[in-house]
Amino acid sequence: VTEDQTRITSLASDGLRDALTIADLESLARQRMDPAAYDYCAGGSGAEATLAENLAAFARRRLRPRALVGVAKPALATTVLGRRLELPIGVAPVSLQRLAHAEGEVASARAAADLAALFCLSTFASRSMEEVAAGAGPGVRWLQLYLLRDRGVTASLLDRASAAGYDAVCVTVDVPVAGRRHRDLRNGFRRFMAGQPALLRDLAPQANGDREAALARLDAIFPNPRATWADFEWVCSRTSLPVLAKGVLRRDDARLALGSGARGVVVSNHGGRQLDRAVPSIDALAEVVQAVAGEAEVLLDSGVRSGADVLVALALGARAVLVGRPVVWGLAADRAGSGVAGARRALELLRDGLAEAMVLAGAGSVDALDPSFVA
Amino acid sequence: VTEDQTRITSLASDGLRDALTIADLESLARQRMDPAAYDYCAGGSGAEATLAENLAAFARRRLRPRALVGVAKPALATTVLGRRLELPIGVAPVSLQRLAHAEGEVASARAAADLAALFCLSTFASRSMEEVAAGAGPGVRWLQLYLLRDRGVTASLLDRASAAGYDAVCVTVDVPVAGRRHRDLRNGFRRFMAGQPALLRDLAPQANGDREAALARLDAIFPNPRATWADFEWVCSRTSLPVLAKGVLRRDDARLALGSGARGVVVSNHGGRQLDRAVPSIDALAEVVQAVAGEAEVLLDSGVRSGADVLVALALGARAVLVGRPVVWGLAADRAGSGVAGARRALELLRDGLAEAMVLAGAGSVDALDPSFVA
Amino acid sequence: VTEDQTRITSLASDGLRDALTIADLESLARQRMDPAAYDYCAGGSGAEATLAENLAAFARRRLRPRALVGVAKPALATTVLGRRLELPIGVAPVSLQRLAHAEGEVASARAAADLAALFCLSTFASRSMEEVAAGAGPGVRWLQLYLLRDRGVTASLLDRASAAGYDAVCVTVDVPVAGRRHRDLRNGFRRFMAGQPALLRDLAPQANGDREAALARLDAIFPNPRATWADFEWVCSRTSLPVLAKGVLRRDDARLALGSGARGVVVSNHGGRQLDRAVPSIDALAEVVQAVAGEAEVLLDSGVRSGADVLVALALGARAVLVGRPVVWGLAADRAGSGVAGARRALELLRDGLAEAMVLAGAGSVDALDPSFVA
Amino acid sequence: VTEDQTRITSLASDGLRDALTIADLESLARQRMDPAAYDYCAGGSGAEATLAENLAAFARRRLRPRALVGVAKPALATTVLGRRLELPIGVAPVSLQRLAHAEGEVASARAAADLAALFCLSTFASRSMEEVAAGAGPGVRWLQLYLLRDRGVTASLLDRASAAGYDAVCVTVDVPVAGRRHRDLRNGFRRFMAGQPALLRDLAPQANGDREAALARLDAIFPNPRATWADFEWVCSRTSLPVLAKGVLRRDDARLALGSGARGVVVSNHGGRQLDRAVPSIDALAEVVQAVAGEAEVLLDSGVRSGADVLVALALGARAVLVGRPVVWGLAADRAGSGVAGARRALELLRDGLAEAMVLAGAGSVDALDPSFVA
Repeated sequence: VTEDQTRITSLASDGLRDALTIADLESLARQRMDPAAYDYCAGGSGAEATLAENLAAFARRRLRPRALVGVAKPALATTVLGRRLELPIGVAPVSLQRLAHAEGEVASARAAADLAALFCLSTFASRSMEEVAAGAGPGVRWLQLYLLRDRGVTASLLDRASAAGYDAVCVTVDVPVAGRRHRDLRNGFRRFMAGQPALLRDLAPQANGDREAALARLDAIFPNPRATWADFEWVCSRTSLPVLAKGVLRRDDARLALGSGARGVVVSNHGGRQLDRAVPSIDALAEVVQAVAGEAEVLLDSGVRSGADVLVALALGARAVLVGRPVVWGLAADRAGSGVAGARRALELLRDGLAEAMVLAGAGSVDALDPSFVA
Repeated sequence: VTEDQTRITSLASDGLRDALTIADLESLARQRMDPAAYDYCAGGSGAEATLAENLAAFARRRLRPRALVGVAKPALATTVLGRRLELPIGVAPVSLQRLAHAEGEVASARAAADLAALFCLSTFASRSMEEVAAGAGPGVRWLQLYLLRDRGVTASLLDRASAAGYDAVCVTVDVPVAGRRHRDLRNGFRRFMAGQPALLRDLAPQANGDREAALARLDAIFPNPRATWADFEWVCSRTSLPVLAKGVLRRDDARLALGSGARGVVVSNHGGRQLDRAVPSIDALAEVVQAVAGEAEVLLDSGVRSGADVLVALALGARAVLVGRPVVWGLAADRAGSGVAGARRALELLRDGLAEAMVLAGAGSVDALDPSFVA
Repeated sequence: VTEDQTRITSLASDGLRDALTIADLESLARQRMDPAAYDYCAGGSGAEATLAENLAAFARRRLRPRALVGVAKPALATTVLGRRLELPIGVAPVSLQRLAHAEGEVASARAAADLAALFCLSTFASRSMEEVAAGAGPGVRWLQLYLLRDRGVTASLLDRASAAGYDAVCVTVDVPVAGRRHRDLRNGFRRFMAGQPALLRDLAPQANGDREAALARLDAIFPNPRATWADFEWVCSRTSLPVLAKGVLRRDDARLALGSGARGVVVSNHGGRQLDRAVPSIDALAEVVQAVAGEAEVLLDSGVRSGADVLVALALGARAVLVGRPVVWGLAADRAGSGVAGARRALELLRDGLAEAMVLAGAGSVDALDPSFVA
Repeated sequence: VTEDQTRITSLASDGLRDALTIADLESLARQRMDPAAYDYCAGGSGAEATLAENLAAFARRRLRPRALVGVAKPALATTVLGRRLELPIGVAPVSLQRLAHAEGEVASARAAADLAALFCLSTFASRSMEEVAAGAGPGVRWLQLYLLRDRGVTASLLDRASAAGYDAVCVTVDVPVAGRRHRDLRNGFRRFMAGQPALLRDLAPQANGDREAALARLDAIFPNPRATWADFEWVCSRTSLPVLAKGVLRRDDARLALGSGARGVVVSNHGGRQLDRAVPSIDALAEVVQAVAGEAEVLLDSGVRSGADVLVALALGARAVLVGRPVVWGLAADRAGSGVAGARRALELLRDGLAEAMVLAGAGSVDALDPSFVA
């Protein structure tokens, strides 16, 4: 940071520019969101032990920097499943982003595209695949998919993803049922009522106006606790897109995913929103990386809040990380604007924080990171 | 949790329905109980280190969920000593339940019976064995037994248990003397005066109205610090019911229990009410399970407050768990009602929490749980 | 605790009787002492890290109780250096006990004698050896000795100890200089001015009334940073009493003590008043016990505040423990009385707490305790 | 501490004399400094995790004192790179000391010289090398050097250091870019504007009055992220002074430093001001000492706040420690005076604290310290 940069930042009067950390963005977001919607986004399941542990597990790790490596500008670019990204960071498939900003996923996808970051769209996005593809410009985009109780609906989603130019499908494997979120229950918060998933309009166009009827249709196909790795395998066979398994925390499941056709695995505890007390994903990463043994790519989400967190995950074997809440806070902080600048600010904070951490740690590129950087 | 369930719960206005956690029930109970009676139920011995550690030791454990197991509805049913239970949870032998609700043990026993859970009646219950048997309907019921200083009284309790259809006898082995409970001493709380144990009426029917004389009779036979495993063995020989030893925390004692005729062992530190600084029972479980080596059944109490806690105990080898304070809080929270709904709510919270944790952890039945689920 | 005992305790209105813990006594003492004198007694050196760790290190240890051992009344009696004690607890050589009570060491020594506990008199006691011997009645008494810069004074103390019937000499080896106590410096507290050591009168009888001159005399011989094990050896040769080394925290020093003639070793960090950040003595106990290998007796002080603490120390190999601050708090809490009752109350709380912990842990005598009782 | 010393200290009314700890000095400094300048000095990078951990890592370590070693006055003197110091402590190269006191580095250097401690002058000192050499009197002085982007400037600094009688050059290797300090960004604090580095006048004498132009010149040569061990090697070849590498935290970097000509290595994380989450330097010390294997001297900074901290570092293999913030707090606490007394007070607190800790730990000289003193 030069003197000039310091001055410019200090003179900036708008909140986004003043935000130095993801926590700053969250603070702005909290002021600007409906409290129940904020709770839905911020909260976790049960006693929120995993929600807290996700952050604590990153914070416990210490870095071992190398000196005088001569890195002026570290190379953040990488490839994920063969596609180039300018940074090893993606937007996690957070549902219902209209809760944060009216533009919803179109804004966050555009922010990702602007930075050549990965974007992953939720099955329960507020905006449709096609709206996002059309509105966000060219970029690497994945569709997150639930294994719904109706294979016809799943198949149609896969077909639309291919048609709309999505690059991969990321199948969530850790939602046999939705985790019990006490905040939502206490708030009486009905997420699909408040967040208006585009899928609801697809499923029940005729239910126009009758939201309860539409919700009943959705309830009939989601969640699907009977889904198994055979269903995952069916998805792999049904689409020509590469398929990843998101929500893996054990070596045996990593092997099952590979055996079922997964080209990638996302180590995740769903941001602390599914099984409370599940291991922090950063604690499960090494086990999964070892089990995968280079046969597929390993990503990670849950708990990434800073560039140093990204560095830790990459050093321990992740090819990239996904971030959910940080982008939501960016969207909501930019509620009065287009949303794009806010979401971009979140990604930039992480990107610039990663770059700074890599320079200070003496890592010239993401490939240079290895476990010796983590104590 | 579907949208509908969310809505219904949020609309419920009565406290029991709104309670999402055992802590919620305790909060209601605290408001509705006499403070000294609350302290008696909530407190532990000494500095209450073990009381706190019991919960902390569960909270420290992390879960390793499996994905896509295809479990729609996990099988919670099990058998304990050959009797079928619909859930691996029982009511611990908490004394003097009239402190929480006028119906006392009849209400909690009925709640257990309603759910086909185990019920264990304390030697110092407010209600008699026969009242409970008559009032609570069919169910698996055990009598908790102290090795009193008068074998005649003990024998009569054993005979009455058989006659009243009790299924087993659970001998408490960790009360050579009563733990020193500072809250009670500071409150000047006299539990047997306040809680009216049915045994007192049995022992001193002639002392009608003269409570001090009746208490003196009780003081003469309880506690019995001279009791040994030979007395335990005598109980086994004196009854045809299966006998368990409750209060075992070491492998050597587990072997002694088996050698003395125990058909089961309950790993317990008496809910932190006896030796303060004793190991949390969940920390002692693996050692006892290993020592017992399948020759008897192992149960656990002390510190179970959520479905995830139950899952941890089962994964580490417990056949079932017992819960005391949660049921007391349920009774007291339902003070204005029958008591049954409150006690049932406590058990339901644990049952449903266990079911949810098992679905999210990918365990289709209690038999599927093994130590690999716990990090 | 029977019902009757509960009632009696709760009805007691005087503070001493109501005190259930050493912390209760300290609370009374704090109210009744001069603040600077309280700080002198309560405080430690430096940042008081060791002061706090002494307690925390005990609190971290968990107990593994045995069941149904048949212990009605555990045998607390032991011998130390061949002398019988009714409890394995002694009064540590706390200096200047007149700061707590006008009767000073005569009161605490009498309390110890009443209970047949060990009493150790400080070189800097407010009362003389002879006053204590005459006023406190028969009992096992040791003299704590500093290796002063004047061997003549040391020799005279040894001679007087023999003459006055003391049973052993406990040489403090961890005071080459006095630890820097920030509380005292901030309070401007001059301990020897406030606490009136009897030794000062012995040293400078002619300085009658001129306290500064007397203090200068004392400053000339204490502390003695040049003291070595050779001086310790000289003490052993100079007296027929058995000699212990107090303030040993390492195995090599334990061996040096034995090689220099020590009959016993007291594992101690001087209650956190000398080297701040020194290891808690309970953490150093096992190392010293192993090094001593039965060739001498091992005692422990620093951090003992409850019967469970005593049990832990005995289980890990201590023959007895010494307690300092607890007795001071007892004296000060009984400021309006004789002091004896207060000091006795402190010792009784520890004795009864030990007895209760032993009964609950299933240890029939102090000899029955072994490391398996500590997790 | 004798009675007399106690009295004198307690009677002292000026803040410096009353300061018993570095924290006391910091408290005075905070009251007397501009808040933004205080934040600049006190703060660290990022979330300040390393800043906090530096202190916590020292505090976690426990000491194992030896008894009766006969040390009256421990020998603190040592040599560093062949030059004798009366204490194994030096002033770290803190930049811009005029932020704390108008006399800046001249005052702190004089304090170091008064005590025969090491002094290391920052490249970004407020006062020039020559002013410090002339104003501070004879003493062991090092120049801290950044590997600037202009070798001519670097060479000129090296020449001036030789000419002004500096004894060694300490090359900082952990600043490829400046760590991001959130406090400064939020305060809009521009350090070079506020702190007036002497180098700025050297670089841009013609820019007299035009500070922005001068800063632009500085920005052009600092920091230099492209610097490598080859540049370090060039420095070694360019000067006849011995060269140290400051900012090493890994064994591989220690070996690289030696291979590049370093005569010494300073284990440092830059006081928590560079890579946040870097390991505490005391945790990295043993690894570096082992890697260096006696081929060079190892020093340490970051987190030293007490004599016990110094003892720990020496026991684990450091030849000396450097302290930065403590001296700054001393300067600022003495803002109304010459600054020398304040800086000296900081060094004296550490020196006397080390001496006291060594006496209490039974170490007669710095050479007597070994890892057995640390648990």
